[in-house]
Amino acid sequence: MLYLALLHHPVLDKNGQIVTTAVTNMDIHDIARSARTYGVRRFFVVTPVRALRALSEKILEHWETGYGSTYNTTRRDALALVSVEPDLDGALVAIERDAGRQPVIVVTSARPGGERVSFASLRARLHGDAPHLLLFGTGWGLAPDVIARADLFLEPITGPSDYNHLSVRAAAAIVLDRLSGTR
Amino acid sequence: MLYLALLHHPVLDKNGQIVTTAVTNMDIHDIARSARTYGVRRFFVVTPVRALRALSEKILEHWETGYGSTYNTTRRDALALVSVEPDLDGALVAIERDAGRQPVIVVTSARPGGERVSFASLRARLHGDAPHLLLFGTGWGLAPDVIARADLFLEPITGPSDYNHLSVRAAAAIVLDRLSGTR
Repeated sequence: MLYLALLHHPVLDKNGQIVTTAVTNMDIHDIARSARTYGVRRFFVVTPVRALRALSEKILEHWETGYGSTYNTTRRDALALVSVEPDLDGALVAIERDAGRQPVIVVTSARPGGERVSFASLRARLHGDAPHLLLFGTGWGLAPDVIARADLFLEPITGPSDYNHLSVRAAAAIVLDRLSGTR
Repeated sequence: MLYLALLHHPVLDKNGQIVTTAVTNMDIHDIARSARTYGVRRFFVVTPVRALRALSEKILEHWETGYGSTYNTTRRDALALVSVEPDLDGALVAIERDAGRQPVIVVTSARPGGERVSFASLRARLHGDAPHLLLFGTGWGLAPDVIARADLFLEPITGPSDYNHLSVRAAAAIVLDRLSGTR
């Protein structure tokens, strides 16, 4: 059972400072569609900013029960996976309620280094009973404190070039595709 | 040699009508980053709307030589791959100039049906000398006329579910990752 979370805090900016990024509509929609495609159980949008949580809830409501629910049903189906939480602990509690146990926390980063688990190895683990929570960071990636808290650190996506600046939307899509192994 | 184009016309809307979609900043940035990661030679943003081409050029200029070029260099590196063209023929001419011959046209669609080439087979073809142009449609996908014009029709991305409504940004990222075979 795979859960996914997109953290807007604590994440890094381009200078390595810890910041809180804004929640963007496009992140929620894109990653929800990818999550729905690959059978993710729940997608948590995590932000400590109360006003942004309220805004996100309002957008979700529009698509779930408002005008949007009949206007675009594929969007509704994807957004039904989304929950908004104030912090990582909120997501962990929600998962424990849903799955009956705490998930294995898996962090991602485009940067090399650290002891990493391969896509193949994580794919094999996902066939087991333990729920897993896959964390993505906005901005320039997850803060060191979040990475330190993880049980597993997924290997970075590498292409044929040395350029490693995918958008988080593209990275989440590729990671889910690699983990599904349906190619 | 792989080229990529994102068509904003002729594409389908949700009712199957042929429309022209708006160019979005996010599409250009996301797909340019994915293209840069996977060694795509050039990414064509195709729209018949003169005002949108002018706007796109202005955005590109900001990042290539304006303030953005020093503010965010990874974005500049990705956007350096982008050209704006009024139609598919414009992209074909540009490719012929660059590669010395017309490319093999490869279309994509989330829908099943038709005679499709597999990811593995296309990946093998890309090792040859012929340039290939991979076409993605905005909206609800490429119009039948564009699909009819193609040399190859790539198989759809399928996950473990029957949901096939990825964003074009996510779909382009996954297709490039599958074709690179670097996993």
